[in-house]
Amino acid sequence: MIICADGNRELTFDLPYRVGLNEEAYFLALANWFRDSNIKVLLVNRKSGPTLRGQAEGVKSTTNEICASFGIGPQIAAESWRFEEIAVWGSKGDGGRGIVREQVVQDKVEELGTIRETMLQQSEQANGVNGHGQVEERIRAKYVVGCDGAHSWLRKQLDVALEGDLTDSVFGVVDLVPKTDFPDIRRICYLRAATGTILLVPRGNKEVRLYIPVESGSALPDPKDLTLDRIMATAREIMAPYTLEPGSVSWWSAYRVGQRVGSHFSRCNERAFLVGDAVHTHSPKAGQGMNTSIQDAYNLGWKLRLVLQGHIRSAREALLNTYESERRPVAQDLIAFDRGYLKLFSAPLAQFDTEFLRAMKFTTGLSIRYPPSCAVQLPRGVEKLGPSLLKADLVPGKRLQDVQVVYQADAIAIRTQERMQANGMFRIAVFAGDIAEGRLLANLQRLGEFLADQDLGLGRLTMSIRGDDSAAWSQVPVEVLVIHCAERECVNLLDLHEVYRPWSSDEGYDYWRVFADAESVLGGHGRVYERLEIDRQKGCCAVIRPDGYVGAVLDTDDFQGLKDYFEGLGMLESEDRLNSKSQ
Amino acid sequence: MIICADGNRELTFDLPYRVGLNEEAYFLALANWFRDSNIKVLLVNRKSGPTLRGQAEGVKSTTNEICASFGIGPQIAAESWRFEEIAVWGSKGDGGRGIVREQVVQDKVEELGTIRETMLQQSEQANGVNGHGQVEERIRAKYVVGCDGAHSWLRKQLDVALEGDLTDSVFGVVDLVPKTDFPDIRRICYLRAATGTILLVPRGNKEVRLYIPVESGSALPDPKDLTLDRIMATAREIMAPYTLEPGSVSWWSAYRVGQRVGSHFSRCNERAFLVGDAVHTHSPKAGQGMNTSIQDAYNLGWKLRLVLQGHIRSAREALLNTYESERRPVAQDLIAFDRGYLKLFSAPLAQFDTEFLRAMKFTTGLSIRYPPSCAVQLPRGVEKLGPSLLKADLVPGKRLQDVQVVYQADAIAIRTQERMQANGMFRIAVFAGDIAEGRLLANLQRLGEFLADQDLGLGRLTMSIRGDDSAAWSQVPVEVLVIHCAERECVNLLDLHEVYRPWSSDEGYDYWRVFADAESVLGGHGRVYERLEIDRQKGCCAVIRPDGYVGAVLDTDDFQGLKDYFEGLGMLESEDRLNSKSQ
Repeated sequence: MIICADGNRELTFDLPYRVGLNEEAYFLALANWFRDSNIKVLLVNRKSGPTLRGQAEGVKSTTNEICASFGIGPQIAAESWRFEEIAVWGSKGDGGRGIVREQVVQDKVEELGTIRETMLQQSEQANGVNGHGQVEERIRAKYVVGCDGAHSWLRKQLDVALEGDLTDSVFGVVDLVPKTDFPDIRRICYLRAATGTILLVPRGNKEVRLYIPVESGSALPDPKDLTLDRIMATAREIMAPYTLEPGSVSWWSAYRVGQRVGSHFSRCNERAFLVGDAVHTHSPKAGQGMNTSIQDAYNLGWKLRLVLQGHIRSAREALLNTYESERRPVAQDLIAFDRGYLKLFSAPLAQFDTEFLRAMKFTTGLSIRYPPSCAVQLPRGVEKLGPSLLKADLVPGKRLQDVQVVYQADAIAIRTQERMQANGMFRIAVFAGDIAEGRLLANLQRLGEFLADQDLGLGRLTMSIRGDDSAAWSQVPVEVLVIHCAERECVNLLDLHEVYRPWSSDEGYDYWRVFADAESVLGGHGRVYERLEIDRQKGCCAVIRPDGYVGAVLDTDDFQGLKDYFEGLGMLESEDRLNSKSQ
Repeated sequence: MIICADGNRELTFDLPYRVGLNEEAYFLALANWFRDSNIKVLLVNRKSGPTLRGQAEGVKSTTNEICASFGIGPQIAAESWRFEEIAVWGSKGDGGRGIVREQVVQDKVEELGTIRETMLQQSEQANGVNGHGQVEERIRAKYVVGCDGAHSWLRKQLDVALEGDLTDSVFGVVDLVPKTDFPDIRRICYLRAATGTILLVPRGNKEVRLYIPVESGSALPDPKDLTLDRIMATAREIMAPYTLEPGSVSWWSAYRVGQRVGSHFSRCNERAFLVGDAVHTHSPKAGQGMNTSIQDAYNLGWKLRLVLQGHIRSAREALLNTYESERRPVAQDLIAFDRGYLKLFSAPLAQFDTEFLRAMKFTTGLSIRYPPSCAVQLPRGVEKLGPSLLKADLVPGKRLQDVQVVYQADAIAIRTQERMQANGMFRIAVFAGDIAEGRLLANLQRLGEFLADQDLGLGRLTMSIRGDDSAAWSQVPVEVLVIHCAERECVNLLDLHEVYRPWSSDEGYDYWRVFADAESVLGGHGRVYERLEIDRQKGCCAVIRPDGYVGAVLDTDDFQGLKDYFEGLGMLESEDRLNSKSQ
């Protein structure tokens, strides 16, 4: 649980927990948002020590992107085990015992340039945020966030109901070093024998994790009665005629799956929030628990940070309410998906095949689109996105694709998610088109003047103090980036408007805000304009939220549209207000 | 300086140094070889504390490969700044002042799959080896290695002369944050103005390093008289009409370049060694100092480790002598190269162009080929490599190319240099060809029997104890790897001979010794057989030394050739000796 104790304190809780570090991934994803801020944050642990075994460990690519945006991507990658293939095994057609490999699927989704999933080899580590000593008996705070698990204490305090049911699935889960002659032991395997199913996931070194539903239906056992021997006996029966003996077992567990969603994700006038498995539970089969929880936390954290830093002057509740309006539908979709996914394992191969590939796309999170709100602005005059826009790739409410661009200054290739670190800043990404053409270069310069203008434009958001002050650059809430598609050699960085390469008297120019959509020396061509379907002769302007989702897509001359977006968030005072003030 | 104090002590030194950690990269490269060994090593520092600024910092790709083989590749990469482009500037043709960009070269060499060079952002960090307290006045040791710099104390003790001369080049070197309107400030630049030359190398963040030869020829200044102001004035004159002011200067120095090589690299009956700038000095322009020094250390370390671990029974001196016979010619070539390279900067563009590209290849180290010795075995009946073999890519004495292969078991792609960690083991890389064909599979199995045979084959090197002992696997000095080019789906790992996927009763099979030359899910196709020009219908067998250089290339049925190699090193007793023993 995380408590934001900044400023005046409006909430009071008597806590059953000790203050300390909770190593759960989604708790840390939230905590990471407060790094390098001066916001007072109290971390309260619901456990007495670290959980070293038995955590959810499958990391999906969108979660890897989140890690990259927190600057911990390489460390997570180094501690992870990669997957490239999924094998599907079915029972032998002749009705007899035994299993046979039906197909091998590459664990890859075309839309993603990076690996789809990895498996953490170790328990997640704390990063950059420390807890404090013993908690006071009574805490008074401005905001409180419950990351306190399926038995959430905060959920009960807030009187939030879990809607849904326990299922008739009881799972055994075992981490072991197997002694086996099963040939696909180092691939993710879906084993669907006549006698039951196994989901097999390789872990670090020689260990694998087995998920085994034990006797579904009428003979439902109480998870407490299940023994390791019984689970292993079920597994052996499914894998026959292949051998399966545990060389060593490092952890095992058994539980009954619930499929439930919280009635509310926030309470107390947008001052108390519930995150992750505190408000949604489901089966482990699709590896969605930790990933969805991290994404919940990632969605909430920047909103709290912006509010607590005083950037949101007039739309505090509207912005914080988007946590529930954006994440609760995702949880509901996930439960619906999970119901179908559990049934899928008994489906015939042809159906399994199609559904399974569909499921792979769902579990990447690529299909998520947040509804319109103060943080997601539909195009002017559009009430609802039509089918053609829904299909497109640069759409308000969807995540900006992680594409490769090349720095204008030094030709080094970088992925957008890596460049757009999660530091609480919005980005205005100017897709300037082919600026070797004078018309498009002139457009870019005019937009630059608007973006830098302290009075009539966005200068108060992009350049906090006019003139030559380097320290202020890092404190403004909006960063301006340019991605052009001209020949890189035809562009001179220093010819562009100052807002695109700001000068500081101490440090010279900032060389790293302008990018080309160009071939890189080693990493190939990002083909950003092609992939995002941007007109090279026209360009466009996208507002990217601090969590990497698209807030708005506008024409490059739609200055009013840009103002509307930041006025809607309360980050910029509207002209009406300015007028009424001056009267 | 490193002292191997293991076993009986044959050398005695009175040391002027304190025991402690020396953070110089080549010192650490040597120390890294002794990790995970039980060899007693004493580290003696020639400095009283860490050197935080002004170190050589340009890391070439072959040095990056060394870092990867020590398992510290990702950390070094994370602390480094990449380069992708080199810009060449010349003086304006009209004889007036001013410079103009002549060309931009991609900083890339076709033979290399990875980046050619990076720049360390921080001083090198110690890794895994700790020093001890205060040194005794007198040290007795079995081996001593001097990594103690251009003024080497050990070199003087050993009475080794530096052959060669001081040049008439005096260099100023400055690390600064520049305030400049020079457009290529974030590219490596060779500036060749009428008034002088600059080598400009971008460093972390906004800092750059300038190398500036100051007044060559008759008016040669004493480096001690040079001031920062004078160096900067020279730089400004060269860069005009572009501005250049130091925002901040973090380090600067001035020195006269010597071009000298030690008369000996080893002494005292192969018990005392000199490494790096203790035995070779030259200009900094080609960025070769630190890289060549690291490669010296990398060449020596595994030989000392093998000898001290008792694996080399009868060829101690022959093996240790290869340090000098392999590395001294490299240093001599480097000095010759450096002479030409210094002159190159005053050459006209056309010649500069050709020579510069040739130089890029030289500085990668790809052209190095070590001469025949007990560690480099020419093909049977061949006294000297002819031109066709010299051109080939899989040749005794050359480094094994860093190629990408795919694990048979789980389809994960890995580069050979990353897989062949620097742990002191030789590898027998069996390029088995297309083993979907019965004939080639049968060849592989026969070779497997030979490799596993404790009496007539190499079993004592590859499998230290016959049968089911897992602990012994990691202690043998030779690891057997298979790289086949069959369809991956046509090969079942468990069908191959046990030596290729050994079984342990605790841990099951070792799944990570067999590779396919195949398309990977995300990383493309390594095309190993094509790049190394290996016949897919025949295959071959390469002995890879612990430092990644090729020791021998043999037909897959040349069992005697394999025995000869390890007998020549004294790792295997020859049949003659066995016969004479049994008599």
